[in-house]
Amino acid sequence: MLKADTTTGIAAASLVDLDQDGSRSLGLPDDAFAQRKPVRGQITKSEVRAVSLYALGLRPDSIVWDIGAGTGSVAVESARIAYRGHVYAVDKDADSANLLENNVARYGDGRVTIVIGAAPPALRELPDPDSVFIGGGGNAMPGIIAEVVARLRPGGRIVANFAAMERANSTYRAMKKASLAPQMTMVAASRGRELPDETLRLEAMNPVFVVWGQK
Amino acid sequence: MLKADTTTGIAAASLVDLDQDGSRSLGLPDDAFAQRKPVRGQITKSEVRAVSLYALGLRPDSIVWDIGAGTGSVAVESARIAYRGHVYAVDKDADSANLLENNVARYGDGRVTIVIGAAPPALRELPDPDSVFIGGGGNAMPGIIAEVVARLRPGGRIVANFAAMERANSTYRAMKKASLAPQMTMVAASRGRELPDETLRLEAMNPVFVVWGQK
Amino acid sequence: MLKADTTTGIAAASLVDLDQDGSRSLGLPDDAFAQRKPVRGQITKSEVRAVSLYALGLRPDSIVWDIGAGTGSVAVESARIAYRGHVYAVDKDADSANLLENNVARYGDGRVTIVIGAAPPALRELPDPDSVFIGGGGNAMPGIIAEVVARLRPGGRIVANFAAMERANSTYRAMKKASLAPQMTMVAASRGRELPDETLRLEAMNPVFVVWGQK
Amino acid sequence: MLKADTTTGIAAASLVDLDQDGSRSLGLPDDAFAQRKPVRGQITKSEVRAVSLYALGLRPDSIVWDIGAGTGSVAVESARIAYRGHVYAVDKDADSANLLENNVARYGDGRVTIVIGAAPPALRELPDPDSVFIGGGGNAMPGIIAEVVARLRPGGRIVANFAAMERANSTYRAMKKASLAPQMTMVAASRGRELPDETLRLEAMNPVFVVWGQK
Repeated sequence: MLKADTTTGIAAASLVDLDQDGSRSLGLPDDAFAQRKPVRGQITKSEVRAVSLYALGLRPDSIVWDIGAGTGSVAVESARIAYRGHVYAVDKDADSANLLENNVARYGDGRVTIVIGAAPPALRELPDPDSVFIGGGGNAMPGIIAEVVARLRPGGRIVANFAAMERANSTYRAMKKASLAPQMTMVAASRGRELPDETLRLEAMNPVFVVWGQK
Repeated sequence: MLKADTTTGIAAASLVDLDQDGSRSLGLPDDAFAQRKPVRGQITKSEVRAVSLYALGLRPDSIVWDIGAGTGSVAVESARIAYRGHVYAVDKDADSANLLENNVARYGDGRVTIVIGAAPPALRELPDPDSVFIGGGGNAMPGIIAEVVARLRPGGRIVANFAAMERANSTYRAMKKASLAPQMTMVAASRGRELPDETLRLEAMNPVFVVWGQK
Repeated sequence: MLKADTTTGIAAASLVDLDQDGSRSLGLPDDAFAQRKPVRGQITKSEVRAVSLYALGLRPDSIVWDIGAGTGSVAVESARIAYRGHVYAVDKDADSANLLENNVARYGDGRVTIVIGAAPPALRELPDPDSVFIGGGGNAMPGIIAEVVARLRPGGRIVANFAAMERANSTYRAMKKASLAPQMTMVAASRGRELPDETLRLEAMNPVFVVWGQK
Repeated sequence: MLKADTTTGIAAASLVDLDQDGSRSLGLPDDAFAQRKPVRGQITKSEVRAVSLYALGLRPDSIVWDIGAGTGSVAVESARIAYRGHVYAVDKDADSANLLENNVARYGDGRVTIVIGAAPPALRELPDPDSVFIGGGGNAMPGIIAEVVARLRPGGRIVANFAAMERANSTYRAMKKASLAPQMTMVAASRGRELPDETLRLEAMNPVFVVWGQK
């Protein structure tokens, strides 16, 4: 399914109909996104991406912030749904920049701007958002939440993904304190895999907590 | 959250910002959709709807069939993502027609056509689809799959939802036989609910099998 | 399956072979245990009871404390596995006493002592335990954990069940601080239910966090 | 946690208090059981073992068959609960015999008999069982179910574990046809794992279907 792109060292998708998949608004395969070799498997799984994109409540003209953009998978799909809007993909990791640029160039429809820098400072110059996705924030999370709550437009949504239970809980509480009427869903998908006799077993993906609120 | 619409007997959403939510491309709340009172709770849960919409691989100009459309929740959200396309919402249950019409009128952006009739016959007059969602098919499923496979455009996707394990398995096998390279994911989401002391417990939703393939 | 015991107002199990089931060491059906009507459904589900009993690491001669004993389901099954040991079923709710007495009399094999009183004070007079199950502790949990850790015999195990994520996390941390090398498992079982056409759908039970440690 | 036993090539558990754990009736750690190196991780996970042992409905004097015994983990724990009974651990794989013997010698309390041979023929000489665990049966499953149903004592239980959905379904139906009033539970446990900052994420284990019936 994958062939190494020897000039960049990045694994590139080689689905038979890549160009065809490339035109979809929603539903890019997990392996469409270039990833650094060591972090392969770290991309948000498509089931979690689907629930998160859904929770973002995108409109055709949404202004979106994707904080901790990583490979940019949420950013580029947001740009396709918000087809008259704009997405700001923010990541503090300069090492990821090439990767993110690669994916944004391939799928971003010219409506994704990459911002390399740490949040919240990196958010200061951006236009106020309608929808904010937080893929990771670590210890900076309280400051990020505060900045996002202050800047979010009325009716806007914040969506955050967590592997860690405690972080999901504390972000839920922070959103509640900010009167965002938060909701949480734990997404625990399992994928069918064929056994040698073609019967299907279920391969579990690790549960992810999706927390979201609305201003 | 809900107020009865006494003229129609249909429960209608009364979120504070209904009009605002009504403009979203993706992410309508579960209670945005009018439902018959007795079946309240039968609507596809939003996590499963999100994964199913994602799997449909919609493009801006997609032609979509929603077979077993029910309340029309998948149909109207598909119409918003495929904003230059068209959706055919097919349901055999004439009793649901009012309900479906109500939801389509409210959210369908004028790009959803309702077709009351049993599939596969009801599918014969429709234009060939790019994306097909099957929310229910019962015993007619083999005939529906055969018709859909024959009519689906190259690169097109079929997505089906199942509560019943055996039906998920047999549809997976039918898609495999039709060379659609099927995939299955069991979506088992649990929602955070506050206990009296404001800590969060998890309320499980029943697992749903999402099976999809691509031509 | 159930017939009302009109003299006590308690629902009693009437499985065809109740006496036969009554002789099992492990594996009593959920409805074997008398429950107060309003709390029906509140009994620890058998899958979670199974994992919790397993984690208790019972020996034939174990001294067991069941704190927050409720219907006594964990207490009586522990007494059957620890067939030369003894179980102390502690509950602060005097209203539950009849119920607990009923279940203990029926299934406890004469090796379960009921203690009505709040923990930790109610634990002071009991012999030091090998295995401790904590079904509920609420705000008293830190004091209960401290008492249990002090009294637990070397090699002994503590097992606690939680619906609330934050309580599971804080008990895990308390056990870690007490050098109990805690483990956590979230048990998310779904039971097969037949649909009218006899295919099987999955009915999810709410996830429960089982946290345990060993001295 | 493990040290290689260089004389046998078998990984042996070296928990600090192995002897202490070795005296437990229920709740042996997963790594207590010697396993062949290549299949490490194939042992039934303890959560599933707990639910399966529970469903067996063991009595102190039960006669137990463990068909497809593998490492013998179910066999030895059954022998400890059925402390006046006897367990027959049946496996067709002669290569596993040493391993099984090792675990049975270490934990079986002298009440587990190993039978190397394929079921159902290997079952013919055994005394009629009260509880039967089927850890694997492959294509021989229909014949095994038939033999077990014929031989099971009244009130006796059969419990089978499956990764494959279709096999779980067909065994459920076979048990139903044999009037065993089958039940199914899908066990989907996730274990807490500490992240570098000591918060807990959840690591999912693959769902297993536990199907059981009672004569």
